[in-house]
Amino acid sequence: MSGTRHYLDHASTSPLRPEAAAAIESWCGSGVYADPGRQYGEGRIARDAIEDARAAVAGLLGVRPREVILTSGGTEAANTASSLARPAGASAGALCSPAEHSAVRLAARRAGRVVDLEVDGFARLDLDHLAAVLEASSDAGPPALVHCQWANHEVGTVQPVAEVVELAHRYGIPVHVDACVALGHVPIDLGEVPADLVSLSAHKIGGPPGVGALVVRRPARVTPLLVGGDQERGRRAGMENVPGVLAFGAIARTLAAPCAVEIAAARERELADALLQAALAVGGVAAYGDTEVRAPHIVCVGVEGVEAEAVVLGLDQAGIAVHSGSACSSEAFEPSPVLEAMGVDARRSLRISVGWSSTEADVAAFARRFPEVVERLRELAASSA
Amino acid sequence: MSGTRHYLDHASTSPLRPEAAAAIESWCGSGVYADPGRQYGEGRIARDAIEDARAAVAGLLGVRPREVILTSGGTEAANTASSLARPAGASAGALCSPAEHSAVRLAARRAGRVVDLEVDGFARLDLDHLAAVLEASSDAGPPALVHCQWANHEVGTVQPVAEVVELAHRYGIPVHVDACVALGHVPIDLGEVPADLVSLSAHKIGGPPGVGALVVRRPARVTPLLVGGDQERGRRAGMENVPGVLAFGAIARTLAAPCAVEIAAARERELADALLQAALAVGGVAAYGDTEVRAPHIVCVGVEGVEAEAVVLGLDQAGIAVHSGSACSSEAFEPSPVLEAMGVDARRSLRISVGWSSTEADVAAFARRFPEVVERLRELAASSA
Repeated sequence: MSGTRHYLDHASTSPLRPEAAAAIESWCGSGVYADPGRQYGEGRIARDAIEDARAAVAGLLGVRPREVILTSGGTEAANTASSLARPAGASAGALCSPAEHSAVRLAARRAGRVVDLEVDGFARLDLDHLAAVLEASSDAGPPALVHCQWANHEVGTVQPVAEVVELAHRYGIPVHVDACVALGHVPIDLGEVPADLVSLSAHKIGGPPGVGALVVRRPARVTPLLVGGDQERGRRAGMENVPGVLAFGAIARTLAAPCAVEIAAARERELADALLQAALAVGGVAAYGDTEVRAPHIVCVGVEGVEAEAVVLGLDQAGIAVHSGSACSSEAFEPSPVLEAMGVDARRSLRISVGWSSTEADVAAFARRFPEVVERLRELAASSA
Repeated sequence: MSGTRHYLDHASTSPLRPEAAAAIESWCGSGVYADPGRQYGEGRIARDAIEDARAAVAGLLGVRPREVILTSGGTEAANTASSLARPAGASAGALCSPAEHSAVRLAARRAGRVVDLEVDGFARLDLDHLAAVLEASSDAGPPALVHCQWANHEVGTVQPVAEVVELAHRYGIPVHVDACVALGHVPIDLGEVPADLVSLSAHKIGGPPGVGALVVRRPARVTPLLVGGDQERGRRAGMENVPGVLAFGAIARTLAAPCAVEIAAARERELADALLQAALAVGGVAAYGDTEVRAPHIVCVGVEGVEAEAVVLGLDQAGIAVHSGSACSSEAFEPSPVLEAMGVDARRSLRISVGWSSTEADVAAFARRFPEVVERLRELAASSA
């Protein structure tokens, strides 16, 4: 790997932000590495630092610090969310659409029976179907939880979270919102949208991998997934990832500045729109998902006549990093359930996503190289046919 | 907190080693922050780095890299260990002594019925009792798992792990060994001791918090605790903590050098012995646990006539960091189950532990200040009585 690189896969993980790097390097160099649970000076310093970071994350979302459980990442948060203590009389079930991330879908399935929610051709949750399912299940025994992501991880479609929360609450059902994709790209105010459980990941907004959070708002309660020590008010055992948490807090402070998310989103939308136009300029390329009401940093396209994997590798050779298929099923090369539910061809899907470090040069490189790569692959396919 | 500090709580967490700091800082500065699951160049670099680190951890223990599942720490490893897929016909139960860490005890209890194993006055597992329980349970339906820590986290007593594994295997029962305390301080060769599951933590050997591993040796299998993506061969979902794993790998390489653990252990034993002698020189101070067959870096003493918490705070004011009670129940100030099982007074216990960065100056500071602090507290207690 040499030459200038253009990283266009922020939706998988975003490069470390300078303030996150500074937080980690400051921890590495501080000589204060204590367990935040300890009573001596070093422990109290670590505790204060953790609580400052927690308050920053809480402040960004408009919740109270004690409502934030720090986790090892979005996957742990989503897994913990599914262990919501069931209200008396509730069935073991949850409502979940195929558009949810695999961590949400599989954790929901492990926790009990899952009733599938329907999505439209943009992977957007069908509110009428949700209302019908809620109405029908209110007789049969209400589900324990409704899952609804804030934005989709493959096509970027923003879900009608506020409506879902209002609808579910009308039936007394709590809602878990996977906000890992939306965080930092879409304004999230949990004072406005009273979701009960919210999963967050730091590495998708320029933090290090290995840290995230689950917001648990009263009266919701979760059963700890990790048991042992009394960390996180007895809700998550194991010593805190201190450097990771400090980095997460530093980014939360950046994003909490007035209009910081809105400004970032406007810039990302501009770059992403240019990427989408460049892609659509090539024949046989179609946009997947809602190109209007979407997370501003993600575009997803289908490329006719070539395998997406070959496009990913071709672009990689041209210095450009993009992704194909579901963000977390790529190791298994399974067809993406999101794209299948949308009725589009997952094997042809290419996800291009920008973030805080993206530049117009990245867009220009994609605009120049994408047509070349697709053309070459189509020629190869034609000559071998 | 000012002036020279003497950190004597390595058994809680050990300061970041230089090679771990270098690994993290190198990752922070590299600009290659990709998801190791991705196919493009940045992803492949991250994947190679993760696999190098995994091989180093595996090499240190004498197991195969694919037997190492990277986790968010020792607590997650221990929690995962308890979800061992039950052999056909096995009861849901596990055998576990009160000397085990709370993560092991509570996870075992959550997984099913727990039969308590007995320990002696040093917190050492009673092999005769274990044999009797195994014999009795072989009729009633064998347990799914036997838990046996390599070394105790409060008093340092080394457990008869090899004998426990041999005994349990005679009945076809797999053994989970919590090696979080022993790692780096006691030679661990899993070629010699065929434990089935082994939990490890990086931060107790000078790595960052937020990373650890569970060794799963064939034919043992575990049910994933975190579901979602296919990371770790489908055994642990969630993006890898890349900087943490690289730091863990760097330390594993240090410890895998010929006799590295033996040399560290000899030095630690010298320092810890001097600490123990300094403590025992004060009247009304008794050693807890086995002072011979123990993890070389831990000493635990009981101090008559004063609350341990006051000693911890008094030493803190004198620039010395030590711990009291169980490493993970300190937030709740509950009496330690380990010390209770040993029949000693948990409220009087003081744990002093050394590690890679400890010096003779640390020992000298403790030897000078500990008698002063205890004397002052006893005077206070006497004058207020």
